Amino acid sequence: MDEILYGVAYYYEYLPTDRLSEDAAMMKDCGINVVRIGESTWAYQEPQDGVFKTDYLTRILDTLHAYGLKVIIGTPTYAIPSWLAKKHPDILLTNKNGQRPYGARQIMDISNSAFRFHAERIIRRQMETTARHPAVIGFQVDNETKHYGAEGANVQAQFVAYLKAKFGEPEAMNKAFGLHYWSNSVFDWADMPSTIGTINGSLRNEFEKFRRLLVTEYLAWQVDIVNEYKQPHQFVTQNFDMDWRSGSYAIQASVDHFEAARAMDIAGIDIYHGTGDRLDGVMIAFGGDLARSMKQDNYLVVETSAQSILGPSNQELLYPGQLRTQAYSHLANGANAVMYWHWHSIHNSAETYWKGLLSHDMEPNPTYLEAKEVAAELEELSPALVNLKKDNEVAIYFSNEALTSLKEFAFSKQMDYNDIVRNWYETLYKMNVEADFADHTVDDLSRYKLLLVPPLYTASDAELEKLNAYVENGGHILYGFKSGFTDEHVQVHMERQPAMLRETLGFSYQQFTGIDRLPLKDDPFGVGESDNYVSIWAELLTPEGAEVLGRYDHPHWGRYACITQNRYGKGQATYIGAWPSPAIMQKLIADAVGKAGVERPNTHFPVIIRKGVNGQGAVLHYVFNYSPEPQTTAGPVMRSTDLLTGKKYNGQTVLPLEPWGVAILRED
Amino acid sequence: MDEILYGVAYYYEYLPTDRLSEDAAMMKDCGINVVRIGESTWAYQEPQDGVFKTDYLTRILDTLHAYGLKVIIGTPTYAIPSWLAKKHPDILLTNKNGQRPYGARQIMDISNSAFRFHAERIIRRQMETTARHPAVIGFQVDNETKHYGAEGANVQAQFVAYLKAKFGEPEAMNKAFGLHYWSNSVFDWADMPSTIGTINGSLRNEFEKFRRLLVTEYLAWQVDIVNEYKQPHQFVTQNFDMDWRSGSYAIQASVDHFEAARAMDIAGIDIYHGTGDRLDGVMIAFGGDLARSMKQDNYLVVETSAQSILGPSNQELLYPGQLRTQAYSHLANGANAVMYWHWHSIHNSAETYWKGLLSHDMEPNPTYLEAKEVAAELEELSPALVNLKKDNEVAIYFSNEALTSLKEFAFSKQMDYNDIVRNWYETLYKMNVEADFADHTVDDLSRYKLLLVPPLYTASDAELEKLNAYVENGGHILYGFKSGFTDEHVQVHMERQPAMLRETLGFSYQQFTGIDRLPLKDDPFGVGESDNYVSIWAELLTPEGAEVLGRYDHPHWGRYACITQNRYGKGQATYIGAWPSPAIMQKLIADAVGKAGVERPNTHFPVIIRKGVNGQGAVLHYVFNYSPEPQTTAGPVMRSTDLLTGKKYNGQTVLPLEPWGVAILRED
Amino acid sequence: MDEILYGVAYYYEYLPTDRLSEDAAMMKDCGINVVRIGESTWAYQEPQDGVFKTDYLTRILDTLHAYGLKVIIGTPTYAIPSWLAKKHPDILLTNKNGQRPYGARQIMDISNSAFRFHAERIIRRQMETTARHPAVIGFQVDNETKHYGAEGANVQAQFVAYLKAKFGEPEAMNKAFGLHYWSNSVFDWADMPSTIGTINGSLRNEFEKFRRLLVTEYLAWQVDIVNEYKQPHQFVTQNFDMDWRSGSYAIQASVDHFEAARAMDIAGIDIYHGTGDRLDGVMIAFGGDLARSMKQDNYLVVETSAQSILGPSNQELLYPGQLRTQAYSHLANGANAVMYWHWHSIHNSAETYWKGLLSHDMEPNPTYLEAKEVAAELEELSPALVNLKKDNEVAIYFSNEALTSLKEFAFSKQMDYNDIVRNWYETLYKMNVEADFADHTVDDLSRYKLLLVPPLYTASDAELEKLNAYVENGGHILYGFKSGFTDEHVQVHMERQPAMLRETLGFSYQQFTGIDRLPLKDDPFGVGESDNYVSIWAELLTPEGAEVLGRYDHPHWGRYACITQNRYGKGQATYIGAWPSPAIMQKLIADAVGKAGVERPNTHFPVIIRKGVNGQGAVLHYVFNYSPEPQTTAGPVMRSTDLLTGKKYNGQTVLPLEPWGVAILRED
Repeated sequence: MDEILYGVAYYYEYLPTDRLSEDAAMMKDCGINVVRIGESTWAYQEPQDGVFKTDYLTRILDTLHAYGLKVIIGTPTYAIPSWLAKKHPDILLTNKNGQRPYGARQIMDISNSAFRFHAERIIRRQMETTARHPAVIGFQVDNETKHYGAEGANVQAQFVAYLKAKFGEPEAMNKAFGLHYWSNSVFDWADMPSTIGTINGSLRNEFEKFRRLLVTEYLAWQVDIVNEYKQPHQFVTQNFDMDWRSGSYAIQASVDHFEAARAMDIAGIDIYHGTGDRLDGVMIAFGGDLARSMKQDNYLVVETSAQSILGPSNQELLYPGQLRTQAYSHLANGANAVMYWHWHSIHNSAETYWKGLLSHDMEPNPTYLEAKEVAAELEELSPALVNLKKDNEVAIYFSNEALTSLKEFAFSKQMDYNDIVRNWYETLYKMNVEADFADHTVDDLSRYKLLLVPPLYTASDAELEKLNAYVENGGHILYGFKSGFTDEHVQVHMERQPAMLRETLGFSYQQFTGIDRLPLKDDPFGVGESDNYVSIWAELLTPEGAEVLGRYDHPHWGRYACITQNRYGKGQATYIGAWPSPAIMQKLIADAVGKAGVERPNTHFPVIIRKGVNGQGAVLHYVFNYSPEPQTTAGPVMRSTDLLTGKKYNGQTVLPLEPWGVAILRED
Repeated sequence: MDEILYGVAYYYEYLPTDRLSEDAAMMKDCGINVVRIGESTWAYQEPQDGVFKTDYLTRILDTLHAYGLKVIIGTPTYAIPSWLAKKHPDILLTNKNGQRPYGARQIMDISNSAFRFHAERIIRRQMETTARHPAVIGFQVDNETKHYGAEGANVQAQFVAYLKAKFGEPEAMNKAFGLHYWSNSVFDWADMPSTIGTINGSLRNEFEKFRRLLVTEYLAWQVDIVNEYKQPHQFVTQNFDMDWRSGSYAIQASVDHFEAARAMDIAGIDIYHGTGDRLDGVMIAFGGDLARSMKQDNYLVVETSAQSILGPSNQELLYPGQLRTQAYSHLANGANAVMYWHWHSIHNSAETYWKGLLSHDMEPNPTYLEAKEVAAELEELSPALVNLKKDNEVAIYFSNEALTSLKEFAFSKQMDYNDIVRNWYETLYKMNVEADFADHTVDDLSRYKLLLVPPLYTASDAELEKLNAYVENGGHILYGFKSGFTDEHVQVHMERQPAMLRETLGFSYQQFTGIDRLPLKDDPFGVGESDNYVSIWAELLTPEGAEVLGRYDHPHWGRYACITQNRYGKGQATYIGAWPSPAIMQKLIADAVGKAGVERPNTHFPVIIRKGVNGQGAVLHYVFNYSPEPQTTAGPVMRSTDLLTGKKYNGQTVLPLEPWGVAILRED
Repeated sequence: MDEILYGVAYYYEYLPTDRLSEDAAMMKDCGINVVRIGESTWAYQEPQDGVFKTDYLTRILDTLHAYGLKVIIGTPTYAIPSWLAKKHPDILLTNKNGQRPYGARQIMDISNSAFRFHAERIIRRQMETTARHPAVIGFQVDNETKHYGAEGANVQAQFVAYLKAKFGEPEAMNKAFGLHYWSNSVFDWADMPSTIGTINGSLRNEFEKFRRLLVTEYLAWQVDIVNEYKQPHQFVTQNFDMDWRSGSYAIQASVDHFEAARAMDIAGIDIYHGTGDRLDGVMIAFGGDLARSMKQDNYLVVETSAQSILGPSNQELLYPGQLRTQAYSHLANGANAVMYWHWHSIHNSAETYWKGLLSHDMEPNPTYLEAKEVAAELEELSPALVNLKKDNEVAIYFSNEALTSLKEFAFSKQMDYNDIVRNWYETLYKMNVEADFADHTVDDLSRYKLLLVPPLYTASDAELEKLNAYVENGGHILYGFKSGFTDEHVQVHMERQPAMLRETLGFSYQQFTGIDRLPLKDDPFGVGESDNYVSIWAELLTPEGAEVLGRYDHPHWGRYACITQNRYGKGQATYIGAWPSPAIMQKLIADAVGKAGVERPNTHFPVIIRKGVNGQGAVLHYVFNYSPEPQTTAGPVMRSTDLLTGKKYNGQTVLPLEPWGVAILRED
């Protein structure tokens, strides 16, 4: 990519009146340079079975092109037409609550053959209409694709075939999953019951794994079709999304992002984050680091808030100035595109209050005017900002298998795996340590000095051996509790815990206990009485060579360690056998970062610094102030030029930051 | 009506023993003069398909008549017999959770043909048996009729026919509702999916509107049947109910009360309200004002608490004296009947703890004895109390369309449209301003000086034009936020907001934001720091002629107005762009009342005054003390006679009120 | 039984590797003397329809026998194989939420004929294989058997047959249950609707009663089969369980324990209780007293916590020493067996974190080592501890009918019948009064000086007459509110309340009210202002001879009594017309205990004393300290020997108790 894309999603089809030319003119005026169209509008393109009306797409393309706007074509498949549901009711997915009624998007079984037939036909028709148009720079296959919790007969039948291929004889599966428990064993594949009612977490986790494979396969299938039409200069992407808790939140349990991204030319993601007083940059950085790590390359922010989501959960309209902060926040993590969802607010239905750059009145408004200013800046700085590369020394090593198996084997009603991932990431972020994400598909971990490994509850022998070798060869790991507890089938190891990690970690344990709150003996991290505690879960560790960083302060459990650190080979492994207070967690991560020799700036949140090398080979430091008060950086500023102001700095100057302000320092 | 009816519902059929004569004698002794019978007892009247046992009704009528008791016959249709459910299982309604099992009342699809056939047959048989009996003064059709959330195939088919009739071509519907969103559009009526799964709030709201039509039609159908038998001196009524939140609460979403009441001779309502320390008169007044407004006439309180509902939600037994307070509270709003639910407590099933005048022991008890005193007073005062007329200057202008569309487009998880209606009504009530209710069916609004219009989220152009004309011609309106936001199809207007109200209100806005709490700049209403705030929702208003009553105190939103007031034509329109604190709301309503020139007494809650002209042309002032402490009215009492004590007042006397006490001052 | 059984459940079938010999050797080493096997492993024994593999059981028996371990054989029927569900899908039960999917245990309709056919076949095969083996000392039929909420067509059909047999004509049922309410009456048995949707609490309660009969019948059916194979020295038991609220809790609503236990030779129960700081002995005592009362004999604790349940609800690992406290706690109530659930932790599925004596590593660990110490002590003391008999003077008189009918007719959203049972039991327990449980099946109540009767909401005339006669003949009863309110069909009596108890209790009432909190006049129990209150429910009692122990302090209800005490015949009956504060409840129970002449030790919780006569005729006093601090008994210790230390006491010595410590004093 040779420029920063600044774009919007555009739904010509949704608008009450035909405003195509007016909208194109306004986009141009605003400084928008790319428009995503097409997704979700299947019925508009094919109003009746086999009746195609895709010509209007040509008119859109022509018009946008006339205004110099580039276009990304989205395949429309994630929202099926009513006629298709009527014709093939079995397309509607069955989840644990029964079959979904028609209405919402993402209610189809993506592995259903009738769905595939019709999806392929509309994709091909759309590609035939659009692919060779000069406005089109790329394609997005489907949108926020997931398995949607499908567990109907069709999915179940495929799962049984998968199990049969994997295990051959049912008894091998019985053994691997422990199905003899409560007579759940199967001795004839024909007897295999639906997974809906299972109480076997191993089987359930395999089913989750299988359903993520369905997503990978489905997306690759769409990419294969699109690739038949794609021109050499065009790209294919997906709009991946994260877990959702009234906003983007941590790891997506329903997709293997790294696997699914392989079929794409470039990774795409949507990021919906806190706004107003809640704009802290955390989820922008999280989502950006995740998307960048998918292909170890720049990525597209395919959707992000324009005016914000304003509904019953009461999110805030972005403050004046925050649209600019947001845009640079995305770029600071390696995005090559910032695309708003969406151009105009929608006049009805489920997302009426997900406000676009334009309000429903389609007139210029403060957000639109601010976007125009941002666009002008971006256009000018584009050569200096595009293709920012990172060489991070730290990675969050996550696992979708751990995430989903810890839903089955929850350790708390209050928190889960994703809370830990999110907390650890945020802790790093706030101390200005940038990180990649990695999972088991990453072959070479040696590029990292430090891995943070949230509870790796399930892992194959090979995966654990790789992690052990990483430490042995000089790597540093910080492990969460429960790591290494079960094998790849979520069967608890019969060896003393932490089983395959025992030697690497230098301790063993046989017992653990639920706790409310326990202090650590003698406040070993010096965090003060009110912060000196662990909670929720406590493993009773007996050191076997590891240094003890923290012991329980308890009449009975005081004999056991809670937090340990062990030299192993040339590396070091730290283990946290409980859920520490935020203050202790901060100390532990700072310690791990320090011992691993990871460099970090001498500032912390709300002043956030993100660094990289731009396409021209210059080193950029984005410096943000995520607060409503003016801030300054902690100390003297390096020899550099602020690309936004042209101001030059050297070691003698302190950098002032406006509320929600940003500077982009290019090292000179 | 020429006397106050003081009555009970009576379920001869439910009682373990035949106590007909004893009960009639006790009713007579108590002073009861009217008894409602028949509703819910279909199976008793028709124990098997086509086998009728309605003769016992004659015996009941004869016995009650012998004791001089009048009778209201209720059609029994709201609880279907088990044999009917067995014979026609499709009568049992399907709602969003599936088909209802047999057992509860109100589980039938009221538009089902088989149900209609059987309902008509039993109604006719019942009418033939009872209509000409001299005891019978009127009829109640069905009971608390609603659509019960029906959305099965039968209702869906009718809805599609309705849509077809309304729109002709599906594309007209697509446009009106914005169905192109997420490919929900329909191009052949045969493809129309069930509304159950829709994510389109416009379609959903139309369905809600349609289902209310089913209720109107069904009740009119019953009235038509009954009218074939009705004698000239007899009346037909319905027992309407309100929304329910552990007691009667605001507007009923499932019925258009004003439309449905047209078929009735007189409006009826049930009112279940706070008791004991929670007896404040609010819901009695709300329900009374609503019922009286239905036909702008006196009404019947067909059900109200006897001993109260005493169950797991722990309502309180009415305190000694409160039965009297309650009775006069109803009459003070224009009721011509106060009927308890019910005569005797029921010895089993769902309402065992909805205690009647009699406890399960069927003996006289304190409540019964108090009713006897009340009856004696009422009988004596009946000529002076009956047919109280009101000429209110204020109306709450409500909208069932706004109510149901704001369920689809909720602005808060904590509160909804009905909370606002309830809060505004209560604020008026506590400052002793009496109000009517009005909706879009009221042609002449000019009788009112002031309309309070809770968020009128959806309205037709004609409706908004009527309201604009009302202001232009000198009316005053206080509008809630979101008013005028969408058209009659709940499609957001493409004009700058508040669209058709922009000129009337004298401002415009393009943006809004969710908020927790924001103060207003400089405490403009003088309510003090802790009360000076708005919450939940904030529209960012730019005045275009309106006076600004309140601005946000916020670094960014401080440039916008929150509350405005505008002269328009001869009238004035005030607008509240956020949800104000109770103290600010009180000030705003007081201001609107004052500027509109509405008179109100110089007292406030717990002393409540309700006023009217009785059938003899005299002006009555009911004065209540809704508190456990003695109270006095604020100042000198007009020249009047207290009908209860015979005591005479003139300007020099202060009126003392006992705890939960009442005086009825007739202006002399 | 001639020795204390100290045992474990063992699931050879679940283990990833064959460890039979190692496990047997470790059990022997640990001091385990009995092992329960077989239950839940149907699929392992019969992997395909009619294909039996029960031979492995012989190998298990041989191996365990070789190590001198005794065996209890559990029939495997409570977890059905997948092939059975596939073959007979109708076996899967339908409850109010629909049909259960395959997966969990206890998902079958226990009255289904196909299930019975297959269950009988596997039981017979298992018996043939095991019954004559010398290791086998007894059998457990099924496990934690309940009706599982079954209400499918099969159960419904049986229920209708049951009603027909009970009532003959439908109209008799209509009358008994009050089905005329809301037209629910039935005039032809063929019209009888499913009970799922009923709003008639009488019918619902009869259905609950009927479903408990299904359990009684099913267990007796299994016992009949087993008895065909049982040798004279062998026993049959069941593992009954209690209500469950994150641990064992009060009375089981789905089984009539006393009825179902008749078919057993010895009662069995599982008890899961608070651990760590929450180990207070209450539920151990409750469950023990309940199980002992079932057959007025010693009982087996078939399951109790080993390391505890460690999962998302965060229970605590038993502290070092608590395994011993727990074991003696069970024995102190008359248990002849303490069996852990279970030997080893399970490596997968629903109970992975219900930790056994062994952790997943199958190595010795602190819990195992502590069990070994306990075993050694028990083996030595076994002759002195076995067959402890009680002669309690107090009984909790409970009623499953009251429990389930008060679910239909709830008096509070916060608490229910079981909370009262649990609270009253705990109050007795903490003042060191031991109690039996009794229900309507106990013919001779005269053995008790005092009965505590929690709200006996429904009872037959015969039952109430028995209780009245009990008082008349000198017994003492403490009744909860609502006692005697309805007849055996849960129909409210038409007599003035408390109807048949009126004369015995010496008061009557007609009215009651929900309350938040009300003080009692003049703090009659001297508990101080903050504890002087009743809450939730208040009956307004008018004394008719009874002494008033407490009156409401309220402007209106002050004229009524709340708590009364009445001499009747030679006995006394106390009644509590509201829900008192814990402090008042404690006073009332202490008063009742005192007036009834029940002896109790001069100590209270956390020092708990449990007493009995051992098989050798000696009187034992178990003295426990359920606290983390050392304690001493209140005063001088009787002439006795501590069986655990050999230390001798006489009147001059104070008994010191370690934290969570125990002494077993044998009177000398």
